[in-house]
Amino acid sequence: MTVFRALRVDLSSGKISEEIYGEQIVKKYIGGRGLGAYLALKEIPRGIDPLSPSNKLYIFAGPLSGTANLATSRINAVGKSPLTGSYTHSNAGGNFAYWLRRAGYDGIIVEGRAEEPVYILVKDGEVAIKSAKHIWGKWTGSATKALLQDAGLETDERKAGVMVIGPAGENLVKIAGLRFSDYERFAGRGGLGAVAGSKKLKGIVVWGTHDTMRDVVDRQKFLKVATEYSTKLLNASVSKALHQYGTNLLANIMNSIGGYPTRNFETGYFEETEKISGEYIKQHYVKEVHGCTLCPIQCTQMAVVPSGPYKVAGEKIKYEYEPTWSMGANLGLSQTEAVLKLEKLANELGIDVISLGNTLGTFIELVKRGKVEYDVDWGDGGALIDLTYKLAYREGIGDDLAEGDWRLANKYGAPDAFVGSRGQGFPAYDPRALKGFAISYVTANRGGDHLESYTPTWEVLGVPEKVDPLCDTPECISKQVSLVIYGQHLMALSDSVTFCKFDTLDKDGIFESHLADLFNAAFDWSVTAQDLLTTGERIFNVERLFHVKEGKWVRDELPPKMREPIKTGPAKGHTASKMFDEGIKEFYKARGWVDGKPTYETLKRLGLEEFQYLL
Amino acid sequence: MTVFRALRVDLSSGKISEEIYGEQIVKKYIGGRGLGAYLALKEIPRGIDPLSPSNKLYIFAGPLSGTANLATSRINAVGKSPLTGSYTHSNAGGNFAYWLRRAGYDGIIVEGRAEEPVYILVKDGEVAIKSAKHIWGKWTGSATKALLQDAGLETDERKAGVMVIGPAGENLVKIAGLRFSDYERFAGRGGLGAVAGSKKLKGIVVWGTHDTMRDVVDRQKFLKVATEYSTKLLNASVSKALHQYGTNLLANIMNSIGGYPTRNFETGYFEETEKISGEYIKQHYVKEVHGCTLCPIQCTQMAVVPSGPYKVAGEKIKYEYEPTWSMGANLGLSQTEAVLKLEKLANELGIDVISLGNTLGTFIELVKRGKVEYDVDWGDGGALIDLTYKLAYREGIGDDLAEGDWRLANKYGAPDAFVGSRGQGFPAYDPRALKGFAISYVTANRGGDHLESYTPTWEVLGVPEKVDPLCDTPECISKQVSLVIYGQHLMALSDSVTFCKFDTLDKDGIFESHLADLFNAAFDWSVTAQDLLTTGERIFNVERLFHVKEGKWVRDELPPKMREPIKTGPAKGHTASKMFDEGIKEFYKARGWVDGKPTYETLKRLGLEEFQYLL
Repeated sequence: MTVFRALRVDLSSGKISEEIYGEQIVKKYIGGRGLGAYLALKEIPRGIDPLSPSNKLYIFAGPLSGTANLATSRINAVGKSPLTGSYTHSNAGGNFAYWLRRAGYDGIIVEGRAEEPVYILVKDGEVAIKSAKHIWGKWTGSATKALLQDAGLETDERKAGVMVIGPAGENLVKIAGLRFSDYERFAGRGGLGAVAGSKKLKGIVVWGTHDTMRDVVDRQKFLKVATEYSTKLLNASVSKALHQYGTNLLANIMNSIGGYPTRNFETGYFEETEKISGEYIKQHYVKEVHGCTLCPIQCTQMAVVPSGPYKVAGEKIKYEYEPTWSMGANLGLSQTEAVLKLEKLANELGIDVISLGNTLGTFIELVKRGKVEYDVDWGDGGALIDLTYKLAYREGIGDDLAEGDWRLANKYGAPDAFVGSRGQGFPAYDPRALKGFAISYVTANRGGDHLESYTPTWEVLGVPEKVDPLCDTPECISKQVSLVIYGQHLMALSDSVTFCKFDTLDKDGIFESHLADLFNAAFDWSVTAQDLLTTGERIFNVERLFHVKEGKWVRDELPPKMREPIKTGPAKGHTASKMFDEGIKEFYKARGWVDGKPTYETLKRLGLEEFQYLL
Repeated sequence: MTVFRALRVDLSSGKISEEIYGEQIVKKYIGGRGLGAYLALKEIPRGIDPLSPSNKLYIFAGPLSGTANLATSRINAVGKSPLTGSYTHSNAGGNFAYWLRRAGYDGIIVEGRAEEPVYILVKDGEVAIKSAKHIWGKWTGSATKALLQDAGLETDERKAGVMVIGPAGENLVKIAGLRFSDYERFAGRGGLGAVAGSKKLKGIVVWGTHDTMRDVVDRQKFLKVATEYSTKLLNASVSKALHQYGTNLLANIMNSIGGYPTRNFETGYFEETEKISGEYIKQHYVKEVHGCTLCPIQCTQMAVVPSGPYKVAGEKIKYEYEPTWSMGANLGLSQTEAVLKLEKLANELGIDVISLGNTLGTFIELVKRGKVEYDVDWGDGGALIDLTYKLAYREGIGDDLAEGDWRLANKYGAPDAFVGSRGQGFPAYDPRALKGFAISYVTANRGGDHLESYTPTWEVLGVPEKVDPLCDTPECISKQVSLVIYGQHLMALSDSVTFCKFDTLDKDGIFESHLADLFNAAFDWSVTAQDLLTTGERIFNVERLFHVKEGKWVRDELPPKMREPIKTGPAKGHTASKMFDEGIKEFYKARGWVDGKPTYETLKRLGLEEFQYLL
């Protein structure tokens, strides 16, 4: 039997309480994103300001987090987003989930607002709200060290779990993220860093000696299954490629199919991709490969910029595909070292680097279109570094940038310069060239998101079957819709359990059946793969109900730029219009939704009758 | 008859009062630095923390500020320095003094500490303490605009006087300065920006329609004298050179005589001076020449860096000799654009750029000597920009840098890496090659200062007579001592009246007699040049008494590095030891001092008996 042990910390009153969610709730929502979404929907009052004390942060692991050598150490955050004004979730790797469970808990709920800066310390089951006055203002790297030191722990962040915010979160920058140990892991999207900032919560430190497998009924049986899947994962060709080059091996691949968004989605092909590609950076800048706790893949590439104007003094840069795109192609910037410097700066200042790229890209477009006056152009490394500082500190024009791309585009009278959905900018794949994303991005509950259903799994890797990313015949549309929905359920599962999405990419593995085997072995359950997919569907619907409750972002809308043909490259001439306009109808039908909203029958089928009052 | 109209603002209680200092006090201390020093000595309690509410800031103009077309618009600040822990004064050009007097006042005394960020508004005689909560955090340029806007004035900073602090002052950085309009004028030295920060004082806005010549008895007579001297000033060759190249014409001159301090005073000759010289920068980067209100010289060179990694987006940089040295030669940095970018950044973040160079130079020396670990070297533009941000925000190692060079060198066990006196670093002339500075720097009451007696006046310009800067024969020593003392009195006068020191450089002009003529014409006085020099001496002694009262920095000490021979260049082999060791004895004797302390007889001679209790 397994339960979910949550710690509830009210920073207004200082009250700390423990809550146990029983096995029925765990079976229904698992943990992580699923349970976070469920509680957020039930608890966060409708219409509140996301930066008010009434908002809540759900920092949740799951029932199998940190148990097996199988990419099981991700951490999930849920709350009401100051960027989008409605539901968001965000997820990071590292070691926090592992140490949270070793500290004796599965999740932490933070509510209220402290008078003065604080951090939460969970040390082997003991919980305290401690002053972080002396740490407020620090950037994320030094704040991590300072919190560990203050907590009386070793300052080596591999040896405890730490969450922090940087100046961006403190300054209520709406694209601020949560940084997790170890190193530079970010639950970036949705601006939850600003929610922590509004609560005067500088961070959370978790450490302990509890057993992460405390609820596992038959340890031998569980480890046998886990080891089998762990070995498969280790040997999967995609795992090996990720270990070799990291996520940024995607740069050349996406550019070669014309789906690498360039200059705020002006086109899908960046002429200078070579210099910011995974292969090039590996050869010239990567000095170390690293990974999350208990992960056999170890995909984290740590780069250096040892000299020159973009020098990153004495520190490595955890560099990835998305940030390299967002600071590179999306800003028309191909100077490798400037791109790496910007990635580091975003991490240190505590900014979601994808939304940073969306915001700076939108800003440059506004400048080029004469909507706002500022001396900046595509590829303008020096000016972009300044703007990043200004954004984090809300200095001058940075005060507008800190509001994020959607508000920025609207403020300066060009809403179409914003390329995203539900108020959040699109990431590093052009949905006109990888058309599955036309459905996946737009229907994503947190908005503008590639991780609620990752279409390159089938559009590039051919898992579970190959779909031509450019095809938008009725047949392809149907196929894409059903795969996107399937993916949405898979991802809801992986974010809830909380496993890495790289567990879902293997040609020979079926994630949901592996997961069923693991659950059954661990907890003596008898769930089927199909049961789990239904759980994923339940979670996805619960998230949508948050928007229904808020009366916000219920309908799914394709941004105008995606209806304009791609200007250059292999996908030249393509738009996302047909895929989206036809696909969304099929999507709603397949989901049992009307106009973006679940019907009563759907809620009933998913066991969500308690929320029928929202319809 | 003239009086001094001071506004006293107690930020703790919100009490605002007006104080009139009568003509006798004005004759005795004039205004500006003199009256500031006198009140500071009387009012600031002994032993207080400079960052406590008990400290006071004296922002003073003088009786002739803003009256005539004769470089008369400087503003002076006095207080207890958080950098040195004792008396300091600092002075800036621009238009603040002019607008302060037009607003109806000659000076503002700020004391106490506000609960929340505020600014002081003096608008045509009406005075208010207003919230600056929404402006706190802003950099100096945008804070200036924001204050003007909040005050309901035009945001063109030429049309009102504004003082602001930047993030450095807010973060209590001990080398933070006060920025004055217009543009980027700094009372930098001594850390008074942190004093304002400690009082939660973001700035002061002054504007009005009062007459700056309200106390002038015979306007025609006064203007006749003023115009005569103004014409002389305009036509002086040094004025023309300053107009043409700005203060940085000194770079090549000082380097050519081996007195251009390089790499934290390792030597006095910088091999790459060309690239940071006034001539080179004028040709390649200067786009505009500008000046203070009512000044015929107009020496302010406004440079641009329009592109590249060190781009300064859309703004001009007020660039000068001292900052170009401190960010250039003193850090071994010859990339012109990096130097200009650093100057701009220091101004925007609100840091005294001389002490910034001292601090970064000391830091690099500590790193090179293995006293502290950090990845930075001489000339390391990219890393130095990062360190400047970190210093302003007290981030990571920046928390140590924010304490300034003296504390930094001591903390890391190498006090001799600090090159300065009274806790403040030396500026852009090597006193081993311009030996007059061995006396002038060290005896300067605010510590490490070239502006309390400017020896290049005679060592380079030959005013009032030429002295070989390298000579340290007994005759030269005597000559230097007497000229340094003369200069100290002249500078005390110019800072008090408040005129620009460029009024004192003219070969054909004798400042003290001009000043006597102006006073006599304006106020129907009958002072002589000698009377005024005695006033200068009185001021200098009052300042010294502050140290006597604090029991701090009374003795004058040459830093150890100045006893080591210069390693390269035209002054190779020279030290400052002989000039200082012999000179200081003569200096004390000539002043009527014993061990750095005025005797009773000296106080009596200067009419300072009221302070005899301090002896």
